[in-house]
Amino acid sequence: MATQPKTAITPTRIEDYAEWYQQVVKASDMADRSPVRGCMVIKPWGYALWENIVRELDDLFKSTGVKNAYFPLFIPISFLEREAEHVEGFAKECAVVTHHRLEKNAAGGLTPAGELAEPLVVRPTSETIIGDSFAKWVSSYRDLPLLINQWVNVVRWEMRTRIFLRTSEFLWQEGHTVHATPEDALARTHQMLDIYAHFVQDYLGMPVIKGRKTATERFPGAVDTLCIEAMMQDRKALQAGTSHFLGQNFAKASGIKFQTPEEKEEFAWTTSWGTSTRMIGGLIMTHGDDDGVIMPPRVSPAHLVLLPIFKNEDERANVMTYTESLAAELRNTHYHHARLRVEIDERDIGGARGWEWIKKGIPLRVEIGPRDIAENAVFVARRDMDHRKKTSIKRDVFVKTIGNLLDEIQGNLLKRAGDYTHSHTRVIDDSDAFYDFFTPENPEKPEIHGGFAMSHWCGEAACEAKIKEDLTVTIRCIPLENTTEKGRCICCGKPSEARVVFAKAY
Amino acid sequence: MATQPKTAITPTRIEDYAEWYQQVVKASDMADRSPVRGCMVIKPWGYALWENIVRELDDLFKSTGVKNAYFPLFIPISFLEREAEHVEGFAKECAVVTHHRLEKNAAGGLTPAGELAEPLVVRPTSETIIGDSFAKWVSSYRDLPLLINQWVNVVRWEMRTRIFLRTSEFLWQEGHTVHATPEDALARTHQMLDIYAHFVQDYLGMPVIKGRKTATERFPGAVDTLCIEAMMQDRKALQAGTSHFLGQNFAKASGIKFQTPEEKEEFAWTTSWGTSTRMIGGLIMTHGDDDGVIMPPRVSPAHLVLLPIFKNEDERANVMTYTESLAAELRNTHYHHARLRVEIDERDIGGARGWEWIKKGIPLRVEIGPRDIAENAVFVARRDMDHRKKTSIKRDVFVKTIGNLLDEIQGNLLKRAGDYTHSHTRVIDDSDAFYDFFTPENPEKPEIHGGFAMSHWCGEAACEAKIKEDLTVTIRCIPLENTTEKGRCICCGKPSEARVVFAKAY
Repeated sequence: MATQPKTAITPTRIEDYAEWYQQVVKASDMADRSPVRGCMVIKPWGYALWENIVRELDDLFKSTGVKNAYFPLFIPISFLEREAEHVEGFAKECAVVTHHRLEKNAAGGLTPAGELAEPLVVRPTSETIIGDSFAKWVSSYRDLPLLINQWVNVVRWEMRTRIFLRTSEFLWQEGHTVHATPEDALARTHQMLDIYAHFVQDYLGMPVIKGRKTATERFPGAVDTLCIEAMMQDRKALQAGTSHFLGQNFAKASGIKFQTPEEKEEFAWTTSWGTSTRMIGGLIMTHGDDDGVIMPPRVSPAHLVLLPIFKNEDERANVMTYTESLAAELRNTHYHHARLRVEIDERDIGGARGWEWIKKGIPLRVEIGPRDIAENAVFVARRDMDHRKKTSIKRDVFVKTIGNLLDEIQGNLLKRAGDYTHSHTRVIDDSDAFYDFFTPENPEKPEIHGGFAMSHWCGEAACEAKIKEDLTVTIRCIPLENTTEKGRCICCGKPSEARVVFAKAY
Repeated sequence: MATQPKTAITPTRIEDYAEWYQQVVKASDMADRSPVRGCMVIKPWGYALWENIVRELDDLFKSTGVKNAYFPLFIPISFLEREAEHVEGFAKECAVVTHHRLEKNAAGGLTPAGELAEPLVVRPTSETIIGDSFAKWVSSYRDLPLLINQWVNVVRWEMRTRIFLRTSEFLWQEGHTVHATPEDALARTHQMLDIYAHFVQDYLGMPVIKGRKTATERFPGAVDTLCIEAMMQDRKALQAGTSHFLGQNFAKASGIKFQTPEEKEEFAWTTSWGTSTRMIGGLIMTHGDDDGVIMPPRVSPAHLVLLPIFKNEDERANVMTYTESLAAELRNTHYHHARLRVEIDERDIGGARGWEWIKKGIPLRVEIGPRDIAENAVFVARRDMDHRKKTSIKRDVFVKTIGNLLDEIQGNLLKRAGDYTHSHTRVIDDSDAFYDFFTPENPEKPEIHGGFAMSHWCGEAACEAKIKEDLTVTIRCIPLENTTEKGRCICCGKPSEARVVFAKAY
């Protein structure tokens, strides 16, 4: 009997997907649990990925006229209360600051002291505190549109947490805009969703469906919530970004008014939109394999690692000189409007060295030994293909074509994820088939099910609730495209105007 | 009698420096008070300055091998208690989270609920929470040095706050490193101080004195605190960055141990170092004049603004075409390893337009009217000189020489600040002269005094305390350079080994 090749990650995806995810994060050295409940430590390899995400997304935002700013971490409770649905949505998961110093107690320990007259909430999102500023900044239609974003930490107290996917503290950006008309605000809501879809697909390599949330799944206080949804390798959906049309709800709550050209006073129309470190979890679950993370080149913390190989000090000097000169040459090469990010790893730790980089998901591993140098060549392994297979490439060819190689990897990851999503997305019109689709074949592996069902829904919350209750399946979104087909609700059989995406979700 | 030219800022610096500062911040549109006690809102013009500071400093850190990471916002009280001096130093100003949700109360309002078993402190600094991770990450001398930084928000509850200078929440970076020997740790402490001094002088244009804090002024828990001190235009000192040698204090508190090459287990040696949004306050107070902020070009949110001038729609089309093409050409030009940052302001608001940019401190204002276009020239005003004086420069010459012009402005600001610092720094060996130096000439303007006194100090805390009590003057630092001169303590007359910098301080 042939033995399976050993995998770097135990368990494998098929054995236990949830545990595989935790082990991949650990093996990649991207993040760590912290002693603070539900908060994570983002380690350098994970944070460098986040820095690349931030830089690229920030450029995309700024190209549409958005400017960055910074608003307070703390929100007075009374501000949160100004929008009824909003406070209802967040009250259950707020970290509350009640004191402003610590005092020695009788036992010699420390006790909170200096009680605040009004407790402060650590921002779970900043509509209300930013709205307070906007009310001061906006007075005329000439001040509009106002297009602001901030990159910050937020806190939503979570009981069951998973690194990157659901943590009590996470990093995100939240954009907040103010407009003179509902049309302008809606256009901006869609524009930012398009930027998210573009970024997540073309940078993170994750195919997404753009859609609209049902009323049940809407952001608390929003009139309309748009989102992008991606399929993970356990066929569950991950929401990777949301863009909200807030109507005049928050403008009324915060008093954001402006004078029209006709000198009438009106409440403004606002939007908000956000993405977070959760995208990193999505990236891992989309591309990762049983040997670890696979990084899409455009955002990878490093594009390649040079692995010098030598047996003695004489060889070492020679190999290192060659390696350093190649690194310098590569670092002067551009890939996708940035310089190539090159690591050199000369540690003498045997095969563990290569495996560390495989687990971290670096796109290219490049071995350089005396024989390669003699041939003026390098020995290259790609992370997106069989990473054990190495190819000798002439140095000058490698330097000249590395951009193409990285583009090929980037494209490959997107295509593979697209094929996967496509092959686990089913158009289903029959109720029994629908229930079968979401029912695990093997009761011992309850997570393995069909994937995304494109089925009709009548629009009633009752049907949505029944399916959630029966199958823990929710409507991820009502797709923005191809929404004109008529049919019958998968749950109640009543007429329906559009297919929606049903799925289990993170 | 000649009338004084009207200033854009009221009061002027000489009339009321503290109030001038508040008015300059407001007029520049850099930041705003917030409804949350002691917290500020950083507006786009101020935040763009911070983004430039972050980018430049971050590059300098990374060039020395430092990597960024992210650690939790919250610190369990028990962690803070692990280092006795440290908790003593911060207990009086901690925001404390005691609950994790909000509940409706009888009156219909919201009350904190879900009390935490152990209260959490919002990080005032992160030695203890980062130390907990480091203890896990470090096990062998091979893991060292460990060089980590994070860019985050921190909270120190302040009773008397001033935007940028002293706020309850501020943005900063905190670097934390771990070393195998005290020599390595000390070398890193000095290396980071040198980076701060380089950055603050050569980017922010603020001359600084590098020195060591006295025991009284040391960071709580540090063995040694190094700092850079700069003189503001009211002759008071501003500490613009600190670098701490922590010895083994925090390694012992957090259990950061490593195995030496000789296979002995030892506690490691750590450092920490930080700078914050306070630097922005220092920049404003160093360069600002009675018409507003003056931005050093290297970090200015924008290098220049193009101000098109036209009388009618026909002129407008022509002028805007010319302006856009000039902007495009300039944006393709590099200044100090970044593209030129160019604003176009075509608002029709009369003279207020130019004044807004003067108050914001943009280095160059460039007017473009039909007459300039006819001559293929632009009309340029510099913020560092008499900003009313405008010079006609041929377009091609302007584009070709703008880098030199900006360098000249950058150099000019540093030189002017250096001259000011120099002219208000006095070597004083006589006690009466020392007291005179710090005693205001005019009791109605208690803030106007001599500046920095370079005087001898015996090293006793009692003398330091007496001078503080008598004059509200403290020892800003014991300079790292020229410390060998012997003399007699300005307070008690006992022998002294070195002159120190005495000053009033922010």
